[in-house]
Amino acid sequence: MPIKTAIFYLLIITSGLFISCDKANNNGTLVEDISAFNNAVSNAKPGDVIILKNGIWKDAELIFKGEGTEKKPITLKAEIAGEVFIEGVSNLQISGNHLEVHGLFFRNGHSPSENVISFRTNEKEVANYAKVTNCVILDFNNLERDQDNLWVQFYGKHNELSNCYIAGKTNGGPTVRVDLKGNQSIRNFHKISNNHFGPRPRKGGARGETIQLGSSFTSMSPSNTTIANNLFEECNGEVEIISSKTNFNIIKNNVFYKSEGSVVTRHGNYVTIDGNYFIGDGVNEQYGGIRIINTGHWVTNNLFYKLKGKSFRSPLAVMNGIPKSPLNRYNQVTDVVVAYNTYVDSSSPWQFGVGTNIAQADVLPKSEIRSARPLRTEVVNNVIYNSEGDPNPIIEHDKADGVTFESNIIYNNGVAIANDHGLIAKELSLTEIGKDLSVPITGFDDVVIYEGFDFESITNDLLGNSRNESNKIGAILNAANVNLDLLDKSKYGAYWFSDVKESKEVKTFNVKSTEALVTALNEAESGDIINLINETYQLPKSLVINKTITIKSEGKAEIIYNGAASTPAIELHPYGKLTLQNINLKGTTTQFAFASLKENMSNHFGLAVIDSEISNFNYALKVYKQSFSEEIIFKNTTISNCENGIELSEETNDRGDYNTEYLTIDNCLFTDIKQNVIDYYRGGYDESTIGGNLLVTNSTFTNCGAKEQNKTLLNHRGIINVNITKNTFENNPVQFISTLWGAKNNVASDNQISNSGKIATEENLKQKLMY
Amino acid sequence: MPIKTAIFYLLIITSGLFISCDKANNNGTLVEDISAFNNAVSNAKPGDVIILKNGIWKDAELIFKGEGTEKKPITLKAEIAGEVFIEGVSNLQISGNHLEVHGLFFRNGHSPSENVISFRTNEKEVANYAKVTNCVILDFNNLERDQDNLWVQFYGKHNELSNCYIAGKTNGGPTVRVDLKGNQSIRNFHKISNNHFGPRPRKGGARGETIQLGSSFTSMSPSNTTIANNLFEECNGEVEIISSKTNFNIIKNNVFYKSEGSVVTRHGNYVTIDGNYFIGDGVNEQYGGIRIINTGHWVTNNLFYKLKGKSFRSPLAVMNGIPKSPLNRYNQVTDVVVAYNTYVDSSSPWQFGVGTNIAQADVLPKSEIRSARPLRTEVVNNVIYNSEGDPNPIIEHDKADGVTFESNIIYNNGVAIANDHGLIAKELSLTEIGKDLSVPITGFDDVVIYEGFDFESITNDLLGNSRNESNKIGAILNAANVNLDLLDKSKYGAYWFSDVKESKEVKTFNVKSTEALVTALNEAESGDIINLINETYQLPKSLVINKTITIKSEGKAEIIYNGAASTPAIELHPYGKLTLQNINLKGTTTQFAFASLKENMSNHFGLAVIDSEISNFNYALKVYKQSFSEEIIFKNTTISNCENGIELSEETNDRGDYNTEYLTIDNCLFTDIKQNVIDYYRGGYDESTIGGNLLVTNSTFTNCGAKEQNKTLLNHRGIINVNITKNTFENNPVQFISTLWGAKNNVASDNQISNSGKIATEENLKQKLMY
Repeated sequence: MPIKTAIFYLLIITSGLFISCDKANNNGTLVEDISAFNNAVSNAKPGDVIILKNGIWKDAELIFKGEGTEKKPITLKAEIAGEVFIEGVSNLQISGNHLEVHGLFFRNGHSPSENVISFRTNEKEVANYAKVTNCVILDFNNLERDQDNLWVQFYGKHNELSNCYIAGKTNGGPTVRVDLKGNQSIRNFHKISNNHFGPRPRKGGARGETIQLGSSFTSMSPSNTTIANNLFEECNGEVEIISSKTNFNIIKNNVFYKSEGSVVTRHGNYVTIDGNYFIGDGVNEQYGGIRIINTGHWVTNNLFYKLKGKSFRSPLAVMNGIPKSPLNRYNQVTDVVVAYNTYVDSSSPWQFGVGTNIAQADVLPKSEIRSARPLRTEVVNNVIYNSEGDPNPIIEHDKADGVTFESNIIYNNGVAIANDHGLIAKELSLTEIGKDLSVPITGFDDVVIYEGFDFESITNDLLGNSRNESNKIGAILNAANVNLDLLDKSKYGAYWFSDVKESKEVKTFNVKSTEALVTALNEAESGDIINLINETYQLPKSLVINKTITIKSEGKAEIIYNGAASTPAIELHPYGKLTLQNINLKGTTTQFAFASLKENMSNHFGLAVIDSEISNFNYALKVYKQSFSEEIIFKNTTISNCENGIELSEETNDRGDYNTEYLTIDNCLFTDIKQNVIDYYRGGYDESTIGGNLLVTNSTFTNCGAKEQNKTLLNHRGIINVNITKNTFENNPVQFISTLWGAKNNVASDNQISNSGKIATEENLKQKLMY
Repeated sequence: MPIKTAIFYLLIITSGLFISCDKANNNGTLVEDISAFNNAVSNAKPGDVIILKNGIWKDAELIFKGEGTEKKPITLKAEIAGEVFIEGVSNLQISGNHLEVHGLFFRNGHSPSENVISFRTNEKEVANYAKVTNCVILDFNNLERDQDNLWVQFYGKHNELSNCYIAGKTNGGPTVRVDLKGNQSIRNFHKISNNHFGPRPRKGGARGETIQLGSSFTSMSPSNTTIANNLFEECNGEVEIISSKTNFNIIKNNVFYKSEGSVVTRHGNYVTIDGNYFIGDGVNEQYGGIRIINTGHWVTNNLFYKLKGKSFRSPLAVMNGIPKSPLNRYNQVTDVVVAYNTYVDSSSPWQFGVGTNIAQADVLPKSEIRSARPLRTEVVNNVIYNSEGDPNPIIEHDKADGVTFESNIIYNNGVAIANDHGLIAKELSLTEIGKDLSVPITGFDDVVIYEGFDFESITNDLLGNSRNESNKIGAILNAANVNLDLLDKSKYGAYWFSDVKESKEVKTFNVKSTEALVTALNEAESGDIINLINETYQLPKSLVINKTITIKSEGKAEIIYNGAASTPAIELHPYGKLTLQNINLKGTTTQFAFASLKENMSNHFGLAVIDSEISNFNYALKVYKQSFSEEIIFKNTTISNCENGIELSEETNDRGDYNTEYLTIDNCLFTDIKQNVIDYYRGGYDESTIGGNLLVTNSTFTNCGAKEQNKTLLNHRGIINVNITKNTFENNPVQFISTLWGAKNNVASDNQISNSGKIATEENLKQKLMY
């Protein structure tokens, strides 16, 4: 070793010794605990690298402050990317300039503060030119659904979240928010790019966005945030996947894959939504497209593929505004451009006047009436292709008389179109451009392009081809050498993390005793089956369900629960998704058959009861406040001799929340249920919450509702989608079977009713204003 | 002449012959009439010059469309600048690119359309890179005050209004408006520079701005308009001189000289107000400064000099907002910076929570209550100098708890300060920096400068000195070699026009007969005096006043009007400003003493009645709708035996309008006036209209109001400033002398009342909402 080099190393080692006992070399300073970390941070100079030692960092509140330079940022990284686990009550706060964070994995915990990763350390100290990259945040949920927080909160300017995998948020609050309060955070030019936003389960109510850019209170501010090249997969939190609430944002080249929501220009103006893929399955009506509110947005070069969303979730939903709207409500749509988009097999892709509620003027204050139609809006140079013809590609909830339609074409498989607004019929065919992706590309070269104001700024197509030379309408100019794989995970998320679950063999535990049942429940992995061999099981304590489990029997085994009053035979914990099949579950009148936890329901539960019998309980199902299930189903099941039936009605703070997205009762028999036979509640006037969903079908209700205080058998006040069909109601001592909400999607049909009250309809339900 | 040159000239002459009979040479095409003009316009090529022949162009609707280039604009100019007069029913519309207009004089007429000069020719065709320069618009008013219009209306982008003189607008509507409806007019980067905005008389009510940038309906749009280096002189139209209603405008280096209003960030955000001079006279309380609403404005390097405006018109008025304000009302102030300004001899220069109206919650809807205080606002690095100490330099109408005060200093001549928010007391003196202009410059080098976020962008001081090297607080770094003349007209307006009126010798016409009186009235010039020599004049027809005239006598000459019923003895026409002194004016009970025109009051009138007697009329003064006077005064005058007194109450459409700015009754005697003794009305809830002004003092009212329907002697409903003081009320058969509006500036004092009802107060007047 030459002398100079030796001295160099010596110096480094020495300096390492000075700052702590941690190892230091020219690759950085390795720190093993929080105090060493803090020490390293406080001494960090431009170019320094602070390395977190592999392993679990529990209850770590990491404050990363520093002053790097453009050429010499200060870096915080994992010893090995993906092998540093931030767990317990932990978070990361960053402030200063030119800082980078690499390779951390947030899991098995939650944040002590209002965010998991924050680009500031206090109100005055924000981060600029800081980057969080190749990190993962997974299921890092607060203990209660109502404890809202954010997982990544941007402040400052020129910060970046890139190549991260982020999934599983179930508590309230957007996954990522850009905050603009204060001049230090406007014109921020943040970048959110190449991330994989994995599944975000349905939250049940509002405050479940994946990304929110600002808030109505900063909706006048220039943000200039770019969201580009991300994959949004099953981002189902609520109706808005991205809620843009500030000005001049750019949403470009993202893939929205089977995500139950839309990109919404909720507040703010002049947002560019260019070159994105919105991919559905041709079936699910929850997958949305782009919903437009406010002024000056440009929607260009996007592909809408097999979307079946309606109204708020239609591929293009242009809303009515409120005249002179309050700051936090709906401004009129003006000066919007929708050009060069392609719509393939998407139902009624263009909808205008969405959200008009003139009919509800009696129950809503004037400041809630959306009667202001779009103005100076251009819908031009677009292509629609329908394998199955759509008689109504354009729906006007209110008149689109402020919209210019020009140079739009449609292939409609011969089906006549009502209200075509000049759509030009063309014979088109599909060209394959990648995996499960075919679009019309040829057959309309002759269509004269509408040249709107500033259209020369639309320089490229969806694939990046230049529009300068041989331009034409639609999102894609040509498909030569194109073979897209939109789900190619190598382009998104952390390189070291895969969300692909290895397929596991399902294990079946045959149990003969209650003890064996409890042991099996502990030992089983998610997805396993417990098979009850014996005929009868005496159960003295609640069974805990905290994973995906099936409990079944061949011969309808009997479980007799004799635990304490007001405790459940089966207790549904976070992640607990139970299928109970062919079981006869009995209580001794004072207990609950199924219940969620009273608190700390930090993740969703699920319940399917099939071919079973539930009897002699106080409650068949008791779901506590802040508990949420995506689906609850009772099928081919008898529920009898209970004081209460199925209760999901504790979300009474009227913020739009509810306890299950879907409640399905199919081919069941309800007998002698005294009250709360079915009680499913959503409260609060919130036009953009479009759940829950109640289906009651092929079922029979007899002698139920005797103690129901409001004299109604099926209580579902505020639930948006209700279908009561093909049931039999006999001898139920109530006044009403149900009161349907006429203005929403509440319907009843083919029910047989005798001596059971009637099905009423209330057109406009009075609701507490949420805003 | 070389052959080539000869051919060149021949070609030009020939081409001139081809297009019309107008003369053409290499300096341009001279056109004599509108058809030649139209022909020249339709043939114009880049670089062409179209020359309007000298003289009067009557009823000329000029449409100037063309496609010039950056290097070769198409020019429309006067043959000699200032000698082409656009008169009658005329206007100018411009569209296309790179166009210039020079040297036109709009006078003696009005526009047939909604604007005099428009930067578009129809909804689709706007102007870009067009310039109107060295033009004059003078008194080009519509015939009625309520016929709102604009004198210059901007559309498109990159247009300019420069070096123009514009004055005398009396009808409704801003003098200049920038219109942003449509993407073709956003981010417009228009320039309004080096203009002289001459006197705009008080309009009486709203809609009298000198410049309006957009409207609430486009308040979300980026405008990027610059208003720079203009002189605003006596721009008294209403409370807002400049009403900025869009985003990112720049208001820089202007002089606001004795202008009764403020620069107001009415809607929109992120406006820069830098390096302006606000000059008052130390007396007039109508001269305002800067009033702040909304988000992100920067107020820097401004000088506020001898301003006495209060509340809405205080030098710095920071308003309270309405929580979640409707689009057209008041957003909360957030993220505003007020730095490096200097305030000299300006009363209570900083006022916060201006416009708070929490106390009026009973009479106003919730959506009108301004209770949202400023947030995240910085008032720093400012200098205040008070020759006479001001005990309250900071007034908090509502708490300024969201405002940071740092590094502000004050010289207060030893007077103690309440509520100083950390103001640092300093001993300062004034340095003369120009004509009638002295400011504190030294004595505070030691004050530590507050370095707010992005403050490095404040690179210069008011005079253009760099702040990079030896920065300090206040608007001016040093005064070396500075000798400002803010009113140096060579820097503003059209070079060929002067608004300086030559002083004229006042001529006195001594008249002995009615015929001579009428003849003299015709012959007199504005400012002249008519002296009545005889004792009595029988007047069979109305005297017409259409200029500034004094009619007087030495021995109280008697004018007996015996014209038709309901006609006035003296008819006040547009521009008619009469002083009647020492005259005994009598009617025969059915006529009016004074009246305005019923229609076509295209300009203001004025009336002063001094040392006179008015008797035996139906009305003493009848002012019709849409007539307006800046001042009406009755002094040392008796009004007796009239059915009606002084009536100014026809502005009943409740849009905030009224008929006179000031009505003064001083040392008068009212006897036997049956009704409408004084009837002065303003209607409509409009917090920013702060007139009219009624002063009734030292006067005696006897036997008045017998037929007054509402049993009130002095009716002044809706008038903001009322002072009833030192009067005697005797034997007036009314219930109330007056009902004062408690929440506004209505006061009464030192009145002697016997057998005349009482003076009541109504704290909150119910008013019709204007918005």
